Amino acid sequence: MADEKQQEVINPWGLKSWTYLSSLRQQSPLIQCITNFVSMDIMANTLLAAGASPAMVHSILEIPDFTPHTQSVLINVGTLTPDWLPSMKAAAGVANQLGKPWVLDPAAVGASSFRLKACLELIELKPTVIRGNGSEIIALSMASIGSTKGADSLHESSDAVESAKSLAKSSGSIVAISGSADFVTDGQRVVGSHNGVPLMQKITASGCAVTALIAAFVAIDPAHAFEATASAFSVFGLAGDIGMESAKGPASLRMHLIDSLHALDQDTVIHGVNITSF
Amino acid sequence: MADEKQQEVINPWGLKSWTYLSSLRQQSPLIQCITNFVSMDIMANTLLAAGASPAMVHSILEIPDFTPHTQSVLINVGTLTPDWLPSMKAAAGVANQLGKPWVLDPAAVGASSFRLKACLELIELKPTVIRGNGSEIIALSMASIGSTKGADSLHESSDAVESAKSLAKSSGSIVAISGSADFVTDGQRVVGSHNGVPLMQKITASGCAVTALIAAFVAIDPAHAFEATASAFSVFGLAGDIGMESAKGPASLRMHLIDSLHALDQDTVIHGVNITSF
Amino acid sequence: MADEKQQEVINPWGLKSWTYLSSLRQQSPLIQCITNFVSMDIMANTLLAAGASPAMVHSILEIPDFTPHTQSVLINVGTLTPDWLPSMKAAAGVANQLGKPWVLDPAAVGASSFRLKACLELIELKPTVIRGNGSEIIALSMASIGSTKGADSLHESSDAVESAKSLAKSSGSIVAISGSADFVTDGQRVVGSHNGVPLMQKITASGCAVTALIAAFVAIDPAHAFEATASAFSVFGLAGDIGMESAKGPASLRMHLIDSLHALDQDTVIHGVNITSF
Repeated sequence: MADEKQQEVINPWGLKSWTYLSSLRQQSPLIQCITNFVSMDIMANTLLAAGASPAMVHSILEIPDFTPHTQSVLINVGTLTPDWLPSMKAAAGVANQLGKPWVLDPAAVGASSFRLKACLELIELKPTVIRGNGSEIIALSMASIGSTKGADSLHESSDAVESAKSLAKSSGSIVAISGSADFVTDGQRVVGSHNGVPLMQKITASGCAVTALIAAFVAIDPAHAFEATASAFSVFGLAGDIGMESAKGPASLRMHLIDSLHALDQDTVIHGVNITSF
Repeated sequence: MADEKQQEVINPWGLKSWTYLSSLRQQSPLIQCITNFVSMDIMANTLLAAGASPAMVHSILEIPDFTPHTQSVLINVGTLTPDWLPSMKAAAGVANQLGKPWVLDPAAVGASSFRLKACLELIELKPTVIRGNGSEIIALSMASIGSTKGADSLHESSDAVESAKSLAKSSGSIVAISGSADFVTDGQRVVGSHNGVPLMQKITASGCAVTALIAAFVAIDPAHAFEATASAFSVFGLAGDIGMESAKGPASLRMHLIDSLHALDQDTVIHGVNITSF
Repeated sequence: MADEKQQEVINPWGLKSWTYLSSLRQQSPLIQCITNFVSMDIMANTLLAAGASPAMVHSILEIPDFTPHTQSVLINVGTLTPDWLPSMKAAAGVANQLGKPWVLDPAAVGASSFRLKACLELIELKPTVIRGNGSEIIALSMASIGSTKGADSLHESSDAVESAKSLAKSSGSIVAISGSADFVTDGQRVVGSHNGVPLMQKITASGCAVTALIAAFVAIDPAHAFEATASAFSVFGLAGDIGMESAKGPASLRMHLIDSLHALDQDTVIHGVNITSF
């Protein structure tokens, strides 16, 4: 009897995450991705597997025609060069003007003062969500370079929570930190997502891919970007948890993760999502 | 006895497709691909698995030296920016001048007037084949934007057959539509290829990959681009059919499809290819 | 008793290779890759699987800030355009100035006089290692174009050994030839690495990936680039040998190769590496 009652306890984040994922599959929102070259394949495949419709459109000539038809915009500076920055700003500008959510991935922001400056300028364009690893969020929060090691983090995600809160307050954005646990904050509230496995950090651009999934979830419910972001983290991590059961290394994990994301069903999401408040 | 006779009925498209594929493996033609960033990995791997030799060479400085040595050229506008267009035109021009086939993939042509204009200019350079999804072929045929949703189609391929015939007549190109069934027309004749599975549409750039395979098949028999195009569709789809037997989602389908393409044997192709006239 | 003694015979290259690989996993050096678009995904995943930290950073604005923090630099001209060349030269220059190793991959160098000239200019910046296929090394050694077929080689690697020795003497670089057997020379010594399977040549950018692994191994022991290069060849090939046991075609081989690279243990490396002197 006790067991039965326990089973009836609802996991509210599981329910919320399932609602987002099932809406994503039904609505198939168009997500414009202006992203780095390394991530394009896994990002597009992640979005397709989740039910979204990705579009890697980055020419500045196309922003006025195309961006208004999208449901959200993802901007990732992973292989930034000066000629790409105007497109990024233009797309963010259109998103703002039309009240569409847009998400910033400050990949390797600490790599150079050029990249840091670009990210700080993009943050002035009010991203709905900023998603980075611990080192990236700390670098952004301190507006200083040198604390990242390429695309890999030198910091635990938990070390960056205070920086994230501070960045959220100063920017007005939801700030999301990925790592061994993922954290999301709006400057006041903090939740942690505990799905996912360490080996995911050995898949290149897996962080970029989860940022794209955040953009897709936020497209479904722009008014609740905090909840959508936490849910995207957990759904992606849950696909990794399940993928890990069949994986023999990082390359097979990548494949199984995407397959699992495509196959996730209501029961698995409702019971598998593991998000806690702090 | 009746069974034996039945087995002797020849599938002429199967035989033709096998002839192309086995010639491709023997001749290993050099296919120059000026394509979008998302597709480069799957496109090169598809061409290698089929037996061709892919070369992603896009600098305009290299066209005069390199393009004359190729057996066909593939041009895909999926991540077009203005600086790539002159290379595309130059390569198409060299192909024309030297009587080599070239194939156009008007990826997401309806995304912007810039992209539409670029595709219409490329069509003036007389592509041997144009391959798009339903929405792309309709957009090209009407010379109007807005009817595509990024890289994904809003139309069934069968809805685009009349547009394809009209485009084939006006352009002089073979026009190929991919979708739940694939269609090929020269403006008069129409054939449908019925190989392939719906999940292939959840693999990013699978459409780009089949266009590259068309470029490889057309390189083998430029005088019969209609037949080569239909055969390429079916061989790729057949690899998907076989891959689907082992697939658990879009990422494993991608892997099994390429493995299957590499492993296709005479018997499987001759009996598996499913092309019908309309 | 005889058997026991035989088992005690040490494979010195196996031991050396294991020392490099285990150091790579411990130190996780930061490898800057300025590479072609086709290779970025497999290259980053190969480096991650081996234990290195890849960074695809190519903007010339970032070189002064970023390159000094790297442990080695990889430059690959596979999709070269004129705007990328200054970054390549700048990164190679910083590496030289700071005494860091850097590795050149002259991908498809014979494709055009533009590409050949670029590679010859890069060689003047004293790469620690040059890695190409047979046709590429011959083209570089003769400083003439036309002897490559896109990214695929027209020559056996063994045909290029004399060219490699000559190039090593003239450039002062270690020269590495990949092929059915891989060869490494410093102009005097030549060793052959006999790990790897032919199907690896059907995986796009597998040659680019092994060059990146060479850059990672050389980062561990810059004073012995000859030994590090031969070891990287064999470790990558050994991962292919093991991957081939489970592979059903080129796409599954790619996955199993990366998984195997990640999983290699001391015993497998010490007994599996097959390097011989010539």
